[in-house]
Amino acid sequence: MNANEATAAERRFYEAFSRLDLGLMRGLWAEDPGAYCIHPGGPLIQGRERVVQSWSEIFSSASPPTIEYRVVSTRQAEDLAVHLVEESIRPSGPRSGEPSRVLATNVYVMREGDWRMLVHHASLPLVGGAKERPRPSLH
Amino acid sequence: MNANEATAAERRFYEAFSRLDLGLMRGLWAEDPGAYCIHPGGPLIQGRERVVQSWSEIFSSASPPTIEYRVVSTRQAEDLAVHLVEESIRPSGPRSGEPSRVLATNVYVMREGDWRMLVHHASLPLVGGAKERPRPSLH
Repeated sequence: MNANEATAAERRFYEAFSRLDLGLMRGLWAEDPGAYCIHPGGPLIQGRERVVQSWSEIFSSASPPTIEYRVVSTRQAEDLAVHLVEESIRPSGPRSGEPSRVLATNVYVMREGDWRMLVHHASLPLVGGAKERPRPSLH
Repeated sequence: MNANEATAAERRFYEAFSRLDLGLMRGLWAEDPGAYCIHPGGPLIQGRERVVQSWSEIFSSASPPTIEYRVVSTRQAEDLAVHLVEESIRPSGPRSGEPSRVLATNVYVMREGDWRMLVHHASLPLVGGAKERPRPSLH
């Protein structure tokens, strides 16, 4: 029950994503009503089944991408781990273009000796700075 | 050291935001190199000083907004708490329009008996579903 184990779950998560492996993706999510996923620019998706369904939709029309990721920081207490990750997602094929750079907050919980994903909150930095926050005075 | 205390820190966070109170905002962030903030559509901002600076920029041109928030789920282990929050941010003034609806993953750590904010990862749902995830095959 150490940080390396949550790191292993994270590796499996990106492996599942890059292989479009829905079985692997399903297996690493916590069976927990509090599990949630927010894809970049997407709505809140709660509960493992809905989360897995969302990945199924994503995988269904995709070719396996090349994913690189960097764990920027981690924090752990007991059976809860929070990771900040920078993802670089490059589609396969000759017209792949620039990779998408995504920021993700990944949260893991320990379940029966294994780390499972509880949260994947991802967002795409669209703008350069904090000034683009929805500004109370400008709406 | 219970969930209610992290909830109190959260209340102060939204109080600081709605009052544009930079002192209150500064005080509730953890002095921790792992602290980070991602404003909706924004880049990664790491470290308390930079995070506070980003709020300073946001506050500098804003009128106090009306903020409502709903804590959707919480998870806590020892000195670490993860909250999922739906925010509704309505600007002040007659031309306020519809509120912005933001999804936030807020993480708190216990420091010297007080809960401090470690993470505020916020995103604006721009689209209706998971299909809008940057799709490996379509980039």
